[in-house]
Amino acid sequence: MGDSVKRLAVLGSTGSIGRQTLQVVRRLSSRFRVVALTAGSNVALLSKQTDEFRPSYVHCASSDIGRQPPGEPKTLSPEEIAALNEVDCVLIAISGNAALTATLAAVRAGKAVALANKESLVMAGGIITAEAKRSGARILPVDSEHSAVWQCLAGEPQPPARIILTASGGPFRDRSPEQLAAVTVAEALAHPSWQMGPKVTIDSATLMNKGLEAIEARWLFDMPFDRIDVVIHPQSVIHSMVEFADGSVKAQLSSPDMRLPIQYALTYPERLANPDLPRLDFATTGSPAAALTFEPPDLTAFPCLEMAIAAGRDGGTRPAVLCGADEAAVGLFLDGKIGFGDIPQLVRAALDEHHAVTDPSLEEIMAAEAWARQRVSSLGAEAGRC
Amino acid sequence: MGDSVKRLAVLGSTGSIGRQTLQVVRRLSSRFRVVALTAGSNVALLSKQTDEFRPSYVHCASSDIGRQPPGEPKTLSPEEIAALNEVDCVLIAISGNAALTATLAAVRAGKAVALANKESLVMAGGIITAEAKRSGARILPVDSEHSAVWQCLAGEPQPPARIILTASGGPFRDRSPEQLAAVTVAEALAHPSWQMGPKVTIDSATLMNKGLEAIEARWLFDMPFDRIDVVIHPQSVIHSMVEFADGSVKAQLSSPDMRLPIQYALTYPERLANPDLPRLDFATTGSPAAALTFEPPDLTAFPCLEMAIAAGRDGGTRPAVLCGADEAAVGLFLDGKIGFGDIPQLVRAALDEHHAVTDPSLEEIMAAEAWARQRVSSLGAEAGRC
Repeated sequence: MGDSVKRLAVLGSTGSIGRQTLQVVRRLSSRFRVVALTAGSNVALLSKQTDEFRPSYVHCASSDIGRQPPGEPKTLSPEEIAALNEVDCVLIAISGNAALTATLAAVRAGKAVALANKESLVMAGGIITAEAKRSGARILPVDSEHSAVWQCLAGEPQPPARIILTASGGPFRDRSPEQLAAVTVAEALAHPSWQMGPKVTIDSATLMNKGLEAIEARWLFDMPFDRIDVVIHPQSVIHSMVEFADGSVKAQLSSPDMRLPIQYALTYPERLANPDLPRLDFATTGSPAAALTFEPPDLTAFPCLEMAIAAGRDGGTRPAVLCGADEAAVGLFLDGKIGFGDIPQLVRAALDEHHAVTDPSLEEIMAAEAWARQRVSSLGAEAGRC
Repeated sequence: MGDSVKRLAVLGSTGSIGRQTLQVVRRLSSRFRVVALTAGSNVALLSKQTDEFRPSYVHCASSDIGRQPPGEPKTLSPEEIAALNEVDCVLIAISGNAALTATLAAVRAGKAVALANKESLVMAGGIITAEAKRSGARILPVDSEHSAVWQCLAGEPQPPARIILTASGGPFRDRSPEQLAAVTVAEALAHPSWQMGPKVTIDSATLMNKGLEAIEARWLFDMPFDRIDVVIHPQSVIHSMVEFADGSVKAQLSSPDMRLPIQYALTYPERLANPDLPRLDFATTGSPAAALTFEPPDLTAFPCLEMAIAAGRDGGTRPAVLCGADEAAVGLFLDGKIGFGDIPQLVRAALDEHHAVTDPSLEEIMAAEAWARQRVSSLGAEAGRC
């Protein structure tokens, strides 16, 4: 095993992105050594992954089954793992706000941080980017949209003039607000193009996901919100675009498969063969790549998009409230306790009630997120009783 | 005037690309000094350009009005100008085979060669790229398609897996061979998206242009023909694409305006503001950028495409015969002497008759081109007598 082997910690290895990361690592096994794996509660899969990849460290957050899964590796917390000397690259695929402290630990330790988690940058983008500047950590986006922007910026000496984030529009892009109110959980979980976890799938259907991505883009690429556009692109072939000062636009395209942006983040700046990915076929009528269409997002039917961008613009603790409120509201919807149309209403209610803190500490950010989650849970319970 | 001022020679300054180059230079006047201008026969415009840009050297090829245009600058041949010490960048917008010797002179002198002429690389790509390697000259593509590929390759450490050249398909892309036979000169000169000179416009309508571009791409990017695809894209918004080893594709998009690739070649790697270029609008229904479609080229109705690529594959003197035969055939069509459908037939006749030379010298290349032009002129005259 030579010096060119990258030593990886995969935080959140049993979720959708974590599993796809290990598929990439399995295919490119001579390039990587998995030093650590962490999971939330899926002990069975973590144990299987541990048997296969033989990490030195593991962690399972689920307390009711004990913190030490079967096998020999040492148990360390995700934060400790993220800062280990023997780790080069930390892939953060922990979902939700739980990723924040691990992201910060990896950034403070100056690691290459392959970031699949949205909430870290949305809630604490100012703190994380300032710490990365101090430590020299590089944040490598794993989200397909931010990976697309990053790929389009390669070799460009100047910052972009405009970032154009594409959105599939989710399964309900042509529905009216009235029709949206009747959406079932099963319908909402059937995303037209991407295979993703349930929280991201619902966020994609409400367009909250795209609002969170706009906030991430603001931090990842140091762009003001008035130069970040969102456009609906139902085919999910163009994953995002960048416009430059001279009016030239670059787009990144591929079949929708998260293993491509994962691999790019892990092998950057190299590109390695990826034979599993179906190649785009522009010349066959009916192929998804043969007709690429765009339309403006319907901001009336999908108010989460503007709400998220407004929270991003306001800054302070408001993006944390957005995250906490949305996490709770999506949970209530998935549990069948509220309707699809209640999600934006509950998020808005939390944002309206919140007394924002400007330039907040990490503690204030986490407190705001926890408050919003709690507040939406109560509001949802009240709604359920009506 | 500081060291950062680029000293330009514009060869072919009165043609379509030459005039647009001077528009770019006029707008970015603090960046450039026009050291030399050359033209074919448009003395009046050359004289006006000379008054405005005050070059040190000029040349006018048209012998019947004298080689020295009015004004004070010295007269030097394009080949002499291309090799001048006081020139940093030579923009070659001379049309047809006449550009070849000037291109070679600029390449041998190690200049930055902004190449808008197609025939140079098509006829003598092997010689030119070998000379560029020796001298350290950099060939900067000006054609929108090759500029797109070049922009997409920026920052990529590895060569592309596939180049996808887009073609508008010209004004007749939906016509049958029978309908094409009846096309008039006026119809053929009405290109749907681009403003170009008459020869390029006709080549665009026959798809010969795309075949020549495939041969250029082979030399510019050192790509085998089986990894160069051509796809029809009627909107002319995506100017070409590159697929990488990992299956990711990058595309370059813009409003169709040659001043963008001209400016990029002149300011590379920087991008400067270009306020005249209309920005792409993806979000407005009916905007050209809001629906991008692709289809395979009709190789039966447009045989020039395959004929050109086959000549490129065969190599030797065959691409020179292709160029000479096409130049003559398009000239006959523009003069009303042959029909639109006769163009590929005459080119094929010349290719069929030609005894190809493998690994030819420059003289053999130029002789083959001259022979083909002559041969097609005779064949055309015979056809006219029938």
